[in-house]
Amino acid sequence: MYTRTEAEPLLERVDALADTLRPTADDVDRGTASAHEGYQAVREAGLLRLLIPAKNGGEGASFLEHTRVLETLATGDAAIALGFNMHNVAIGSLCETADTPLPDAAEEFRAWVFSEIVNHGRMFASAVSESGSGARLREIRTSYRKTNAGYVLDGEKSFVSLAGVADYYVVAARHEDSEEHDEVSHFVVSADDAGVSFGRFWDGAALRGTETATMTMTGVEVPRGRLFLGVEGMSLFKLVREPHWMTAGYMGAYLGIAEAVRRFVLDTLAGDDRRRGSATVQADIGRLCVEIEATRALVHGAARLVDAQRGSLEANTAVYAAKYRVGELGPRVAAEAVRLCGSRALHAGSPLQRLAREAQFCAVMPATSADCLAYVGKAALGFDVFDARNLDW
Amino acid sequence: MYTRTEAEPLLERVDALADTLRPTADDVDRGTASAHEGYQAVREAGLLRLLIPAKNGGEGASFLEHTRVLETLATGDAAIALGFNMHNVAIGSLCETADTPLPDAAEEFRAWVFSEIVNHGRMFASAVSESGSGARLREIRTSYRKTNAGYVLDGEKSFVSLAGVADYYVVAARHEDSEEHDEVSHFVVSADDAGVSFGRFWDGAALRGTETATMTMTGVEVPRGRLFLGVEGMSLFKLVREPHWMTAGYMGAYLGIAEAVRRFVLDTLAGDDRRRGSATVQADIGRLCVEIEATRALVHGAARLVDAQRGSLEANTAVYAAKYRVGELGPRVAAEAVRLCGSRALHAGSPLQRLAREAQFCAVMPATSADCLAYVGKAALGFDVFDARNLDW
Amino acid sequence: MYTRTEAEPLLERVDALADTLRPTADDVDRGTASAHEGYQAVREAGLLRLLIPAKNGGEGASFLEHTRVLETLATGDAAIALGFNMHNVAIGSLCETADTPLPDAAEEFRAWVFSEIVNHGRMFASAVSESGSGARLREIRTSYRKTNAGYVLDGEKSFVSLAGVADYYVVAARHEDSEEHDEVSHFVVSADDAGVSFGRFWDGAALRGTETATMTMTGVEVPRGRLFLGVEGMSLFKLVREPHWMTAGYMGAYLGIAEAVRRFVLDTLAGDDRRRGSATVQADIGRLCVEIEATRALVHGAARLVDAQRGSLEANTAVYAAKYRVGELGPRVAAEAVRLCGSRALHAGSPLQRLAREAQFCAVMPATSADCLAYVGKAALGFDVFDARNLDW
Amino acid sequence: MYTRTEAEPLLERVDALADTLRPTADDVDRGTASAHEGYQAVREAGLLRLLIPAKNGGEGASFLEHTRVLETLATGDAAIALGFNMHNVAIGSLCETADTPLPDAAEEFRAWVFSEIVNHGRMFASAVSESGSGARLREIRTSYRKTNAGYVLDGEKSFVSLAGVADYYVVAARHEDSEEHDEVSHFVVSADDAGVSFGRFWDGAALRGTETATMTMTGVEVPRGRLFLGVEGMSLFKLVREPHWMTAGYMGAYLGIAEAVRRFVLDTLAGDDRRRGSATVQADIGRLCVEIEATRALVHGAARLVDAQRGSLEANTAVYAAKYRVGELGPRVAAEAVRLCGSRALHAGSPLQRLAREAQFCAVMPATSADCLAYVGKAALGFDVFDARNLDW
Repeated sequence: MYTRTEAEPLLERVDALADTLRPTADDVDRGTASAHEGYQAVREAGLLRLLIPAKNGGEGASFLEHTRVLETLATGDAAIALGFNMHNVAIGSLCETADTPLPDAAEEFRAWVFSEIVNHGRMFASAVSESGSGARLREIRTSYRKTNAGYVLDGEKSFVSLAGVADYYVVAARHEDSEEHDEVSHFVVSADDAGVSFGRFWDGAALRGTETATMTMTGVEVPRGRLFLGVEGMSLFKLVREPHWMTAGYMGAYLGIAEAVRRFVLDTLAGDDRRRGSATVQADIGRLCVEIEATRALVHGAARLVDAQRGSLEANTAVYAAKYRVGELGPRVAAEAVRLCGSRALHAGSPLQRLAREAQFCAVMPATSADCLAYVGKAALGFDVFDARNLDW
Repeated sequence: MYTRTEAEPLLERVDALADTLRPTADDVDRGTASAHEGYQAVREAGLLRLLIPAKNGGEGASFLEHTRVLETLATGDAAIALGFNMHNVAIGSLCETADTPLPDAAEEFRAWVFSEIVNHGRMFASAVSESGSGARLREIRTSYRKTNAGYVLDGEKSFVSLAGVADYYVVAARHEDSEEHDEVSHFVVSADDAGVSFGRFWDGAALRGTETATMTMTGVEVPRGRLFLGVEGMSLFKLVREPHWMTAGYMGAYLGIAEAVRRFVLDTLAGDDRRRGSATVQADIGRLCVEIEATRALVHGAARLVDAQRGSLEANTAVYAAKYRVGELGPRVAAEAVRLCGSRALHAGSPLQRLAREAQFCAVMPATSADCLAYVGKAALGFDVFDARNLDW
Repeated sequence: MYTRTEAEPLLERVDALADTLRPTADDVDRGTASAHEGYQAVREAGLLRLLIPAKNGGEGASFLEHTRVLETLATGDAAIALGFNMHNVAIGSLCETADTPLPDAAEEFRAWVFSEIVNHGRMFASAVSESGSGARLREIRTSYRKTNAGYVLDGEKSFVSLAGVADYYVVAARHEDSEEHDEVSHFVVSADDAGVSFGRFWDGAALRGTETATMTMTGVEVPRGRLFLGVEGMSLFKLVREPHWMTAGYMGAYLGIAEAVRRFVLDTLAGDDRRRGSATVQADIGRLCVEIEATRALVHGAARLVDAQRGSLEANTAVYAAKYRVGELGPRVAAEAVRLCGSRALHAGSPLQRLAREAQFCAVMPATSADCLAYVGKAALGFDVFDARNLDW
Repeated sequence: MYTRTEAEPLLERVDALADTLRPTADDVDRGTASAHEGYQAVREAGLLRLLIPAKNGGEGASFLEHTRVLETLATGDAAIALGFNMHNVAIGSLCETADTPLPDAAEEFRAWVFSEIVNHGRMFASAVSESGSGARLREIRTSYRKTNAGYVLDGEKSFVSLAGVADYYVVAARHEDSEEHDEVSHFVVSADDAGVSFGRFWDGAALRGTETATMTMTGVEVPRGRLFLGVEGMSLFKLVREPHWMTAGYMGAYLGIAEAVRRFVLDTLAGDDRRRGSATVQADIGRLCVEIEATRALVHGAARLVDAQRGSLEANTAVYAAKYRVGELGPRVAAEAVRLCGSRALHAGSPLQRLAREAQFCAVMPATSADCLAYVGKAALGFDVFDARNLDW
């Protein structure tokens, strides 16, 4: 609805990339084309450097820019956008520390990650969830033990996106002798490390292009330098205070799905003067646009708040509110689009069918719609949402 | 939600039939199993006689009973229910004339149809729509000409359900010398008639089991006795006055889809005491049930009105209102179900995915949601909805 | 939307009564006219006998008929309808026992009540709620003690409708020595009994015509024959099993408010051919009608179930579902009506303003919308809703 | 939900002003207190200069700041905020020309207006609507004729806010010899001009504090210098291109009403630990907050676009979208608030009742919800919304 008002070369580049991804999105969805070419295009567009600070050779993108990049990319292929998001989730918090001096080990780790991406074009991914426990840190069973050279990891991760596509995986693991939260640490595991293997790809109703599979680690040796931030015992604290990457890094992608639905409807109606001229169709389109724009304004506003006051109550609440809203938007927009487009929207090969299936995922991904509402409601009612006991991690 | 309060042996029989259809519904949807077995089960259950008056050897079911049969059947396999509906649409109006004396030719025709079904187990189907014109009678291009022995038909029908499954097809055709509405007549064409062939099956996003294809007639000779009601020139009048078969015969099937979704959710939650005990889940389930029950009450009420005062303004308005409401219900219920069931509902093989795709069709099938609202609104505002000029046929 | 299909002389009589109430409804709302004349009209129409069995000289109306009477009455004046409902709530359960032989004391009590109404035209009311405890029986503080002649009552009731209008008040009181639920008994207190007084009338945002006030009893002596059913210790059991009078006796009145809103909109648009002919207005009206009819179908269906299987899980769930739905309907319909009628609907004297204020009350009256959803959700999820511990009384 | 992130002394001042208005808002609504004191407070707070450019001695507020000022003010008293808006509507377009050189007569006029406000504290109002024609310029009947000294005006304006409160009224009038649109001119009429009188105050369901009345002009002589911009023949063009003042100047006030509702709910629940701790109440509050925040984000975004690219398709569409959304929001939020607050929200004196009545007005004020949807829908479908023939002015 809104054109970009200032020169935004980054988004124009991404727009062009989305145009190249769009023609194969349905084939990737059906499994008749590989998503690998899409990710190759993302690499070649230089997007892996999106979040790396400018002084380190990256684009230095803000959370808002990240969100808008996903939104634009997803109008081409939402699965690729969501896969790409996992690279950003894996490194996002690290990039945000760029202006903060860190202890030596952490500085080294950060420099290594930035260099791997900027100089060697490496793609990262995140491997946190496990079967049965979801993304809850407190229930993680993948274990690590210390050796002289570093660490040895054993366990199985579920729902690892970019499986076999990414070069590195940020893996959460628990010290083998501990049951405490603060003994969960993160490690960077390479796809080439001995003992790493990927299992069956998840057969989801959509988003096959995220290349999501299980990842098994059997006695995987990880050198000391790949301990995340060089410190054992990742605190729950950060997670509670800054939910934006984990729970809302992908918001933009689902906004992009809604936008793609809107464009599909407008393209379909463009050739149909009778329906285009109908007052009720115009009102329905009006309603559709208002809902999308209200959600977009909320999502962009939340991302702007993250950039301005990351981790604040205001920013977090805005993030959860936006995540909830974008999760509700997609299925509603898709259903309305079917009504507006009629039977041609119901053909198996209609892109709208793919978009409708993709739109379902948002509300279910953590934080779920129910969790988001609970956070926003509790915050408004004055509960201390920073107190981990008020949340369900 | 409600159990049946009186002995209803018919619905119990259909319930049992639905149980036998349910296990293969996903396979039929995927094309790895044939729908023919499902239709064979419908035949064997004696359901083809559902609408035939009792005095002619049938079940003598009312429109309400028909609607509830579809509803029950669709909890097993909605595609089969919708296919079966086409048999009933093809013969429904005829069955409703059972107590009305007709001219000789019409009496003969009626007796023949009843006998074919009751004594020979024939299945009928309806072949009205054509590519480009939809179901609008005024735009039909399939033509017929008169011969000494009867009629010769030429043309192509689109979206013919039960293609290759039914024995007979009620075909709308226009006199080759006429452009007037009242020269549109209906004929019964046999699958075995020379010159009849079925083309590509429609590759829809769902409901493959309706076996919907194009039907081509090339010089098909139809004996005089198969002219519908023995009279040329089917009036538009009936269509305008009695929309229940054409626009709402299938309501029950979509209600059954919503009911199947509800059961899926309750089954899924049954094993999850944490979520089942959640106050917000209970409220969400409550809301879901209320919406389904309100729609069910409206649908059943409309069907009851059709039985009591067929063709009246009240009955028609109720039918359009119910059709609109059931069309809106499905997608909403499916989206809410996904939220309630979480990621397991998003697996490609989840029956919920099939149900969500099936639910999309209702609002788009004629009368579309927009047409239904227009009818109800105009009727309330005092426009003469029996005047064909106020409608868009 | 639907006309009545059979001769319904009762509803026609009530329709005529509603026509006489309508012109003064706004004045009663503003306090410039008294509601007493409206109640006098109700008496004169013979409606106080509505629920009394035919064999005892009453109309023998079913719960469905009661609901439709309220619905019709409320299109004239909802406050009068809601006041009248309290008479029916007070005697409804008693009337339902008419075919059940009772112990002698109870038989006598029942006969006395029926006679007071049929032969002497007495109006009853219900006085259960108390300030702070709402309608929860377990928190009632009004006390009674036994004397030789009968009982002495002391306490204060809040929200007593028909205060000063009714002749008798059914009062819940707790035995002065007891804190047990089953020691709560009901008594019939006469407006003329010494020690009875009515306090300030509740200054609500609407429904002034219900004549709702506090009722104070100071040493009120009640003869033995006015102990409800002649038995001390009214069980909670009945309340849990048969919620229809307490939580949904008034459903019809709120349905009538929505219907009155609909008529107001149609009347307003009747004189405006430009808007009446607008396709979007027609669609909006269509949507409005569908929502009202779906709710009506649900409400009537629930009432029918109460008549068929009172106290069953099915009937209760239907009652709670219907009560929830009608509570949601009113405010939505009123807001849509304002949009459709424009600025003339916003005049202080517009009946729509009164209707909008009245419509707010439904969701808040017990059982509240939240309680209704919880009941329906729990019932669907298989909890035992007859177990009082699962409810919040 | 969001606190202001930067020092915003203007909004803090307005916040303090809102605090002083809040205690009397209900009395002004009931007519037991005068709104004049509220407007006096607005004057004393220096807000009449809000839009005047800084270089001319004003605050130089942007449209976004104006919108946020109204939003803040309306949390205290929405009627005062809406009245104050009319001052800004009357002078808004003029203030936006501040950086544009104008012809001499226009420069003089502009300087005079700015000086009257800055140096003499004058309040302006807008008098455009007439009975029967609404705000449609093409149907205006108030006439003017030219004299040597200036102009003479005759006619009657309806719905003039700030009647008797403002010092000056910007009046639209048609040349007595013309029926063309472009002969409609605007004049500044003083409350003290001979022949000016105010009629009955509009008895609306709410917003009495806007002091809205009819204004009659009988042979009112207006000197040449008070011809708006010194030019006869105000073009429709500007209106079509820049709808923000006319159709959306007041958006902020209605957002403020929704915010006041939210605060009322949170205050009410603050003292009720049982309900505050309820998971369903938390979810309901979450939903309420999300809807308000999404609307706020849309409104602020639209205002920001007006500031960045006034009159562009993007800005206008955003304005109409935001106006629609805020109009839908209020009644929904009020209804939900009643549910959440229960019976105490239904007392005649509850501020929530006033807020609910006030919230109704937004959707009805021009541009109505229907007009807004039509604009947004047409713009999305590619119609030329700058072509006046596509609009209904």
